[in-house]
Amino acid sequence: MKKIVLMLLRNLSDEDRKFVIGKIGEYAEIYFQDDIEPYDKAVKEAEVALVSTARSEKTREILANAKNLKFIQSILAGVDNLPYNLLPKDIMISSNAGANAEEVAEFAIALTLAATKKIVLFDRWMRRGIWRNDTPQLIRDAIIMILGYGNIGREIAKRLRAFKPRKLIGVNRRGYKDEYIDDVIKPDKIRDVIGSVDILISTLPLTKETKDFIDKDILSRMKKNAVLVNVGRGRVIIEEDLYRHLEENQGFTAAIDVWWRYPSKKGEETYQETPLHKLDNIIMTPHMAGGWSGFRRKLLDYALDNVKRYLKGENVENIIRIEDYI
Amino acid sequence: MKKIVLMLLRNLSDEDRKFVIGKIGEYAEIYFQDDIEPYDKAVKEAEVALVSTARSEKTREILANAKNLKFIQSILAGVDNLPYNLLPKDIMISSNAGANAEEVAEFAIALTLAATKKIVLFDRWMRRGIWRNDTPQLIRDAIIMILGYGNIGREIAKRLRAFKPRKLIGVNRRGYKDEYIDDVIKPDKIRDVIGSVDILISTLPLTKETKDFIDKDILSRMKKNAVLVNVGRGRVIIEEDLYRHLEENQGFTAAIDVWWRYPSKKGEETYQETPLHKLDNIIMTPHMAGGWSGFRRKLLDYALDNVKRYLKGENVENIIRIEDYI
Repeated sequence: MKKIVLMLLRNLSDEDRKFVIGKIGEYAEIYFQDDIEPYDKAVKEAEVALVSTARSEKTREILANAKNLKFIQSILAGVDNLPYNLLPKDIMISSNAGANAEEVAEFAIALTLAATKKIVLFDRWMRRGIWRNDTPQLIRDAIIMILGYGNIGREIAKRLRAFKPRKLIGVNRRGYKDEYIDDVIKPDKIRDVIGSVDILISTLPLTKETKDFIDKDILSRMKKNAVLVNVGRGRVIIEEDLYRHLEENQGFTAAIDVWWRYPSKKGEETYQETPLHKLDNIIMTPHMAGGWSGFRRKLLDYALDNVKRYLKGENVENIIRIEDYI
Repeated sequence: MKKIVLMLLRNLSDEDRKFVIGKIGEYAEIYFQDDIEPYDKAVKEAEVALVSTARSEKTREILANAKNLKFIQSILAGVDNLPYNLLPKDIMISSNAGANAEEVAEFAIALTLAATKKIVLFDRWMRRGIWRNDTPQLIRDAIIMILGYGNIGREIAKRLRAFKPRKLIGVNRRGYKDEYIDDVIKPDKIRDVIGSVDILISTLPLTKETKDFIDKDILSRMKKNAVLVNVGRGRVIIEEDLYRHLEENQGFTAAIDVWWRYPSKKGEETYQETPLHKLDNIIMTPHMAGGWSGFRRKLLDYALDNVKRYLKGENVENIIRIEDYI
């Protein structure tokens, strides 16, 4: 008997539906969120669910009623938004880490270069007729630390390597190392080396361990003209500490794609708690590094590969440690 | 007898003077611009001059009186500003091409990524509380053309290669090709392939041949959402044509570091002839790609290596074709 898979994504196009069926139809009975109700029999019997942000009321109701779920596959790399309190305790959950690693890496490097070369600031001055010089930093001379050295970090390192930086240091708790990185350290060693770092790039997911990790202590140990890039999750940094640090250190630059506050509906005017948007030494982008619409098909493809592994009884990838999130 | 070398740079520090003497003192009698007058005997007898922009009145007077000059070494990669009318017809001139190729390449890639990811535009919106999505382009999927494939082009290609672009096409008239570029074409073939190009990066010097090369015909053949980066010389593009093209094609983005108008003195408010600064689809930086003060020592070092070759009777590099400039 085929296992039941719930596709908890809204507004899937006919083309996307066909794509899903083509990928896993052979192994699964597939139900799409827009066609089902929370109390349907299929929901109760479903073994697998593919989810996105799970922010909608309907998605949450469906998850609360899917009492026989054994495996949840996220279409996103970050799984911090899942409604863990509604899920069975022994459930297996996989993130979609790596699916858009190249996209995020390109964006992270775009932010890194925009910050080191002060592109945004120069542009702002030029529009006011001001020709002001400054001293852009060279990647070639920089010591770069990638916080959360995994799929995305590796793609960042591969590309930055071509700029011949002085040193590339990765940070992860597994001790994972490869040929693209000079050195990998554990998180508890960061404070020993952060003082020599010119560019700190965070790709960290939001977990109990990473929340508020970059605080005033870390920031105060950094070089006065260092660059901090965040393409992971906003709450890894303490907003108030970053704001104060930027205000007091005009030579320090932050380039931030992930935030503390997000618009609750499309088009809503949104600022952060602190007036970060008034500072000259921050570059702000609206969570564009990896999640935009043009990529959905690719994310879906990558996520369904893992669902297929589950359905075929093969080893599933990207299984998260639930205790990191609850 | 040692040959006389005129160092036509202003305000050289004691350290820089010592550096110059250390590099070529063994082979040359060195005179620094700040210490000499145009009618000095040393000027008349000098065989070699090292020059920068040669914009100052004193530099020009010295050059006009240096009737025995045989070799001029520029400290800049671009030699379009030299006073060719004051120089002997049979003089040999070398540019400093390659000296800051890595610096310019980093900056060119910073502009390329800022444009493809719309970093500057996102930042402008975010500061007004606007969370607007757009579709950033991927370098990975792009066909990239490097106009003027030489020292700088090679450093750009080396780095972009790590982003795995679909294709890297170089353009030069020598047919020079290396392992970093997929294809090299001659300038007269550009119109045949420009329609497929996603990103056009110009590193062209300003010569009789390159002046006004990028005109409305070239621009109109380009993709509507293409990106144009210029780190060579401003006048390679026709300003009016670029302005009109940007105004009529909001999806097209220009990222420009080199200009038509420059401030005539430090701190002077400067705009271009057309109101480019009012357009959303241009990124503007004040000629920062390769020339800032932190690099002078490196440029000097590179230029003096070539002067030393001349003094020792070795083969001199980077000899320009004077007929390209007069």
